[in-house]
Amino acid sequence: MTETTLTPVSVIGLGAMGSALATALLKAGHSTTVWNRSAEKAEALSEQGASRAATVVEAVQASPLVIVCVLDHTIMHELLDPLGEGLAGRVLVNLTTGTPKQAREAGAWAATMKTTYLDGAIMATPPMIGQPEAFLLYSGSEQAYEAHEATLKRFGGASSYFGTDPGLASLYDIALLTSMYMSFAGFLYGAALVGTANVDATSFATFAEGVISGIVLGDMDETARQIDDGHYPDDASPLAMQAAGMQTFIKAFHDEGIDTTILEHLKGLTDRTVAAGHAEAGLASLIEQIRRHV
Amino acid sequence: MTETTLTPVSVIGLGAMGSALATALLKAGHSTTVWNRSAEKAEALSEQGASRAATVVEAVQASPLVIVCVLDHTIMHELLDPLGEGLAGRVLVNLTTGTPKQAREAGAWAATMKTTYLDGAIMATPPMIGQPEAFLLYSGSEQAYEAHEATLKRFGGASSYFGTDPGLASLYDIALLTSMYMSFAGFLYGAALVGTANVDATSFATFAEGVISGIVLGDMDETARQIDDGHYPDDASPLAMQAAGMQTFIKAFHDEGIDTTILEHLKGLTDRTVAAGHAEAGLASLIEQIRRHV
Repeated sequence: MTETTLTPVSVIGLGAMGSALATALLKAGHSTTVWNRSAEKAEALSEQGASRAATVVEAVQASPLVIVCVLDHTIMHELLDPLGEGLAGRVLVNLTTGTPKQAREAGAWAATMKTTYLDGAIMATPPMIGQPEAFLLYSGSEQAYEAHEATLKRFGGASSYFGTDPGLASLYDIALLTSMYMSFAGFLYGAALVGTANVDATSFATFAEGVISGIVLGDMDETARQIDDGHYPDDASPLAMQAAGMQTFIKAFHDEGIDTTILEHLKGLTDRTVAAGHAEAGLASLIEQIRRHV
Repeated sequence: MTETTLTPVSVIGLGAMGSALATALLKAGHSTTVWNRSAEKAEALSEQGASRAATVVEAVQASPLVIVCVLDHTIMHELLDPLGEGLAGRVLVNLTTGTPKQAREAGAWAATMKTTYLDGAIMATPPMIGQPEAFLLYSGSEQAYEAHEATLKRFGGASSYFGTDPGLASLYDIALLTSMYMSFAGFLYGAALVGTANVDATSFATFAEGVISGIVLGDMDETARQIDDGHYPDDASPLAMQAAGMQTFIKAFHDEGIDTTILEHLKGLTDRTVAAGHAEAGLASLIEQIRRHV
């Protein structure tokens, strides 16, 4: 399908995110059909020009491209499983939050329904939907992504397709958000520590920005290369020495009355990596123990 | 003291770091006296022009500015306590790794020895010493820092003075390194997760760089402001919703066989923050629970 005319789209699920998605489609001029379990939110969108479907079946029948954005995969299945062949021939874009495993299961399930499946993850808040910088991740049917890319970019200009494995969008999303949360938490721990001496977080941020951009971002490509090579050389800070340093950090946090559990975990991970034979290696070698579920 | 002539400096402790410090002084033309418990390392520096002191007392007597860089504070006290009045009138710059508490104790101890005390922390590896970008942190006597700033900058051009509390250099150092380690670990966890689908770390790094620079660094000033205000508004991702998301992340890491302990800790911290009344707040509110040692 080419998009010389705008593809009609149905949106199932009108929470804050689903409503933002429908609004972005309406603003771009798509014929948009909406359905929600409770009716109020559909009313608001109806005033913006959306067609209200009375049932999920009606919503699915209204458009070749069906977006589902509900609370979780269980609810998605409650809504869509009863349709049976009713989904056949449609492109289903599932923007419901879930795990990579759930996305892969949904991909297999969609195939049994003769439905083309695209899984998506949204790394943006509802107010960001429709902005050029909003980042949405997609994986699953490559044909479906290519056919509907322009429509999907109504939701966010920075959208990307990650591959045919339907789990990839969720996998990347969770991996990136985990990096983000840990980096963010690291800043909060640091701010809490200097705060014990009445240093304000704004003063600390100036230096933390320098360290994150200079060291963490500065070393990221080399770190990635080491991970891909499976070889973690270090010229100046062998891991055993860094483990000793972390013990000093834990003592410092403890002395100042700050939570030490996350640092103790990091130290434990480092100790296990040293014990596994990486005493002289660089920090990237931690990944080998991270990969082992304990 | 002004530095129209170069200040003679003594360096006590010639491990990898102490040797790098002495080398930087020698390269800059300072009259440099060195002492180390075992003699070999002093010999190498002697060939570069350093004077070898036979005893710690001799090293301290040789220069008005004494740098000590040994394994830990216990060893520093073993070496310097016996000097008694021998340290009087000297400026002691302690670059031995330690906690803020140890730095404060050393500052009080130095006062009893009639010694001017500067504590320092080195956020650089030995090969980086002497480079313009090497970052050393100092706190303690402001007069001593001002008098010897030019000499201390021989070690690293990016050196900074943080205040009269001798604990501040160590406090900032540990806070910044904690931020760095957690950010770095976050990247490794993300790389491990996408790695389960054979995505290489180099591909992941491209996106992780965007998230760290765009979101973490992009929001840092606002986060710091919220911490300083003690008020954590959030317009789009209330904390209770983020806690639910983290539960999905833990499930995903578990499904793919990756260590989940650090994420479980982060989720626990988030749950405690929600339970403390911040369900509708932003992520910065986590700092209130981080401050409570559990």
